[in-house]
Amino acid sequence: MYIVFLGTGGGVPTPERSLSSFVLNYEGELLIFDCGEGTQHQMVKAKIGFGRETKIFITHLHGDHVLGLPGLIQTMSLLGRTKKLEVYGPKGLKEFLEASKTYIQFNLRFPLEVKEVGEGTVCKEKKYRVLARWAEHSIPNLAYAFIENKKPGKFHPEKALELGVPKGPLWSKLQHGKSVRLKDGRIIKPNQIVEPPKPGIKIVYSGDTKPCKAVLKLAKNADLLIHECTFDDSLAEKAEAEWHSTPKGVAELAKKASVKSLILTHISARYKEPNTLLEQAKKVFPNVKIAEDLMRVEL
Amino acid sequence: MYIVFLGTGGGVPTPERSLSSFVLNYEGELLIFDCGEGTQHQMVKAKIGFGRETKIFITHLHGDHVLGLPGLIQTMSLLGRTKKLEVYGPKGLKEFLEASKTYIQFNLRFPLEVKEVGEGTVCKEKKYRVLARWAEHSIPNLAYAFIENKKPGKFHPEKALELGVPKGPLWSKLQHGKSVRLKDGRIIKPNQIVEPPKPGIKIVYSGDTKPCKAVLKLAKNADLLIHECTFDDSLAEKAEAEWHSTPKGVAELAKKASVKSLILTHISARYKEPNTLLEQAKKVFPNVKIAEDLMRVEL
Repeated sequence: MYIVFLGTGGGVPTPERSLSSFVLNYEGELLIFDCGEGTQHQMVKAKIGFGRETKIFITHLHGDHVLGLPGLIQTMSLLGRTKKLEVYGPKGLKEFLEASKTYIQFNLRFPLEVKEVGEGTVCKEKKYRVLARWAEHSIPNLAYAFIENKKPGKFHPEKALELGVPKGPLWSKLQHGKSVRLKDGRIIKPNQIVEPPKPGIKIVYSGDTKPCKAVLKLAKNADLLIHECTFDDSLAEKAEAEWHSTPKGVAELAKKASVKSLILTHISARYKEPNTLLEQAKKVFPNVKIAEDLMRVEL
Repeated sequence: MYIVFLGTGGGVPTPERSLSSFVLNYEGELLIFDCGEGTQHQMVKAKIGFGRETKIFITHLHGDHVLGLPGLIQTMSLLGRTKKLEVYGPKGLKEFLEASKTYIQFNLRFPLEVKEVGEGTVCKEKKYRVLARWAEHSIPNLAYAFIENKKPGKFHPEKALELGVPKGPLWSKLQHGKSVRLKDGRIIKPNQIVEPPKPGIKIVYSGDTKPCKAVLKLAKNADLLIHECTFDDSLAEKAEAEWHSTPKGVAELAKKASVKSLILTHISARYKEPNTLLEQAKKVFPNVKIAEDLMRVEL
């Protein structure tokens, strides 16, 4: 699975940064988080298709996180999408999209399912689920966690052969966590041959927020935390007043949550190059990067 | 005065073409025609400010011509604009913007005046006016003409001196079209010293349309006609069915209207490079160009 950042700017676009959005490609399915204006343009540049199985998760209804949605839906329709599109987000999202459809005629050619959600599991698929928690912003903002299911542990064929388990259906049973009986009557348990299940990948995205307990809890042990970081530490008061974050606060949160890696995004247009933010964050949490438009991260 | 093309693609964006918009800089004032998604991004790239005296003219309410408007207004507000913004367009524009303001909280900090207009003079300023006519598209679409007032003719100081008119207030009177009486009683008429007034610049923009009589009439003797040209001539039937234009039709219209120059825009994403369209148009009307994003045209 991999992530492509589509827009990494905060509030207003710059020549280098479009508005908030990233896409997680999970085994070919697209999970798009936020959809600021220009998201469809960036998807074209990143050569991400418009016809795939896709879910969109909106954190909050500020323009720079959602105004790309009507245009993206229209382009999907123009390009012949037929698959259902699911869009998740806080209350108000449905009315916003209904209004867009009313005044701008989309000729929608595929099923559009808009789900207004709050805290809890917002979607549960065969191999993953997405969980939401309210973060702390000037308007309701959902932080999301993508949580992959546990994966089967490593199977050791040499141990199987050593214990006399013949290659074939018995191996498969053991891999799926079931004990097997051999012809000689011995019972072999999975843990004799297969390592314990491994936790799946966990990715957490804050949307716009101050550093807060809800995101800290949601991010616990995440493989990757993608957190807004609009201002640098010298503007901590402004950040506090405007319900945004600075590197110190985010890095402390990442450390407390024991996340494996941290990426800062939603960078204010005032930072022509974001080294200041990176250095401030590194003092507290070394495994940190600044998101750049079209940056790809493998997981 | 000059034009910068902000978006020149038709329907969906490509890596090279954003969605419909161009800006006319007239003595520092901005007249923006159409505002597809990504217009604000392109304005940033073209280093056009968000705080200037600005009018926006929307041709029709298809998404690729208008979905950049809410985001542009929000960015103007975030960047501290205080000057009034005037937006002109067909019926429905007001409700569309009201809905956007309702569901996406703009915190609008400047006066926004939305004027739903039809055929006729939609605005008249000291030095220019903008005239609208209904073109022929699948939904109501206004074509616009920017018409600069006549400019005073060239003043010939050598002729003034030859006729004994002393430099000073009398020269100014003659320049402003008034006759003057000299001390010796002779009356000097402006046409003895000043050339006849010159017509101002005329720029016509079609929006989305089939080639039609209304645009032909509006474009009569224009210095520049900017006309949509979504498809090439081999797709003339498709263009007809979808209320769009091809090079032959547009070039014939330009020729009949005796325009000085023609620029084709709203190019379908299928044309990776638009030479086919250019060659087809040149057969009929040689002074033609294809618009490119961020192309600047002096007038």
